[in-house]
Amino acid sequence: MSIRKFVTPEIIFGQGALSQIGDSAARSGASKVFVVTDQGLIEAGWVDKALHYLRTAGLEYEIFSSITSNPKDFEVAEGVTHYLRSRCDALVAVGGGSPADTAKAIAMLATNGGELQDYEGVNRIRHPLPPMVIVPSTAGTGSEVSQFAIIVDHQRRLKMSIISKSLIPDIAIIDPDLLNTKPPRLAAATGIDALSHAIESYVSLAATPLTDIHALNAIRLIFGNLKRSVFDRHDAEANNNMAMASLNAGIAFSNAILGAGHAMTHQIDGLLDTHHGETNATLLPHVMQFNLPECRQKFTQIARQIEASATDQDRCEDLSEQAIEAVRRLTRDIGLHKSLADVGLKKESIKTLSQNALNDACLVTNPRNATAEDIEQLFLKAF
Amino acid sequence: MSIRKFVTPEIIFGQGALSQIGDSAARSGASKVFVVTDQGLIEAGWVDKALHYLRTAGLEYEIFSSITSNPKDFEVAEGVTHYLRSRCDALVAVGGGSPADTAKAIAMLATNGGELQDYEGVNRIRHPLPPMVIVPSTAGTGSEVSQFAIIVDHQRRLKMSIISKSLIPDIAIIDPDLLNTKPPRLAAATGIDALSHAIESYVSLAATPLTDIHALNAIRLIFGNLKRSVFDRHDAEANNNMAMASLNAGIAFSNAILGAGHAMTHQIDGLLDTHHGETNATLLPHVMQFNLPECRQKFTQIARQIEASATDQDRCEDLSEQAIEAVRRLTRDIGLHKSLADVGLKKESIKTLSQNALNDACLVTNPRNATAEDIEQLFLKAF
Repeated sequence: MSIRKFVTPEIIFGQGALSQIGDSAARSGASKVFVVTDQGLIEAGWVDKALHYLRTAGLEYEIFSSITSNPKDFEVAEGVTHYLRSRCDALVAVGGGSPADTAKAIAMLATNGGELQDYEGVNRIRHPLPPMVIVPSTAGTGSEVSQFAIIVDHQRRLKMSIISKSLIPDIAIIDPDLLNTKPPRLAAATGIDALSHAIESYVSLAATPLTDIHALNAIRLIFGNLKRSVFDRHDAEANNNMAMASLNAGIAFSNAILGAGHAMTHQIDGLLDTHHGETNATLLPHVMQFNLPECRQKFTQIARQIEASATDQDRCEDLSEQAIEAVRRLTRDIGLHKSLADVGLKKESIKTLSQNALNDACLVTNPRNATAEDIEQLFLKAF
Repeated sequence: MSIRKFVTPEIIFGQGALSQIGDSAARSGASKVFVVTDQGLIEAGWVDKALHYLRTAGLEYEIFSSITSNPKDFEVAEGVTHYLRSRCDALVAVGGGSPADTAKAIAMLATNGGELQDYEGVNRIRHPLPPMVIVPSTAGTGSEVSQFAIIVDHQRRLKMSIISKSLIPDIAIIDPDLLNTKPPRLAAATGIDALSHAIESYVSLAATPLTDIHALNAIRLIFGNLKRSVFDRHDAEANNNMAMASLNAGIAFSNAILGAGHAMTHQIDGLLDTHHGETNATLLPHVMQFNLPECRQKFTQIARQIEASATDQDRCEDLSEQAIEAVRRLTRDIGLHKSLADVGLKKESIKTLSQNALNDACLVTNPRNATAEDIEQLFLKAF
């Protein structure tokens, strides 16, 4: 194994952990907090709760919620203006991947200046970011612990991967109670996103024994709990386990990076504004099939994790192929077994998407070398 | 599960990782580094290598190596004077638990003032510490990732547990090559120390699913590799795995704390200046036996980890008891199966030691409530 780094933020986990948001922001050095969130979280009442805790800790705040799913570069730009004008000195995100990544991108531009495009790729941030505390409301993104921010470049119609240790927040607060108000379709999509994080980071060229135990733990928890958490959103045990799974997958992929699945998904998300998790669900089994020749041993380990948590399953001769079949079955069971045609992709876009995927930082760690042609073929298989 | 925190430093792991020490200290903000180490490391040539990398990174340094096994309060006091007089602004430890804990204690007093005794217990540090980088040379202490510093109070003749998030260094650099020069007896003792960390943190009242996966991984790696690493100190694979095991055990116990075994060991170390790992080896099976009624399920999990890595073993009816028997067998196999009489303890000391153990912060998280009488009985059983 070569020399590898492993970094996580301080993590606070448990039912009711949202109550720590005020104290966490205060001890990170905040006096006025920029709260990045979205309309769904406001309506579910979580933002009111968060604001109460911020006030109790003696903090002022400003709310920024004009963001959409797959956050756009112009939304970030608006956020930066708002942040600087309101003289905040720290950021808190309450929500799914969109508020979290938007908060990170705002924090980055607030102290580093320039355009988002200047930071696309790995390790391009020069100056420290203001303190950040992230509270995820979906069990999927992993952004609360990761060195990733993924933002849509609306002109190029693709997602930019910005990767830097500076994007890891100071504190991640994971409160499984926030999953209670998540719609089932979102629970399904974000759960498969977490599964993609776990599987892609586990077979990544940058995986280490330290990321592996988190990735495998996430896979085991997702196969044991995702269905229950989709079909009964008040199942506290399933929600706890899915929150823990997403956290583990986040720790794994933040340090081991991802692979072709995410490199390809980012292009479709950027072009069609589809849900990231749903696109992932469509592509993941095909990417696994492509990677199989380089990953037989690791896929066998994945199958063993699944076996430990599943009750019924088909038996393939080869355990490694069973892992792929199990992923296919899980996405079907939770209603995400779609084709790329179903999500609205046109075949004539594939050439451009494949070229763009080659430039995505996530492709570098894919366990099997993939050419533009390989990626075109993969897109076609998912049609 | 209640709300729990989980914190680790930045971790750099891999053969040759010592080469990162200069860059790591520099980006932590150092200009002149206080290098805490010991005579053994200097003689083995590791300190020369470290100094080369510090110079290459443009850093000045001062060396402090007047410390002993089980570092003493007066050694720390001497270190603080030396640190302040030499106008260093960061600390680097290269060595086992003694240099690491000494560096932490020096850093703490340098910016917080007062006496070590003022900080005994949990969360008593008020001011930030100077940057610290720790490079362990034994696979046992876990100090490179932990919020613990353990220092002998020479007047009371006991070890003080100082526990605070501030004691986590900025960067932990784990280079398994440093294990090549470790004498077999030290490899055995520190390996059992790591095993105690893993087992005590796994059954701790403060354990979480996040600490559990690190603790179990450490247990699996120790049973699979400790013997090989003791009997062939140049077995690179065994050394790699033991370095990874110790790191995992450190992450687990730093966040889940320990139990009665360490609370008791600290007293004997302080009284007799014995080797911490050897005392641990003597006490661990007895403490496990005492804890068994509260830990059957978790000990069963431990036995399953051992089963996965062992080739021959006795079969107890009860898997949980098999875990205890396996620990006994491992300590015997590596020559550490001793009684407390063998390490020089006198029976008349037991009453005082038991009383002092009650005040050790590690006892709070022991899974079974232990009175002074229980602890006396445990000491007697280990005689």
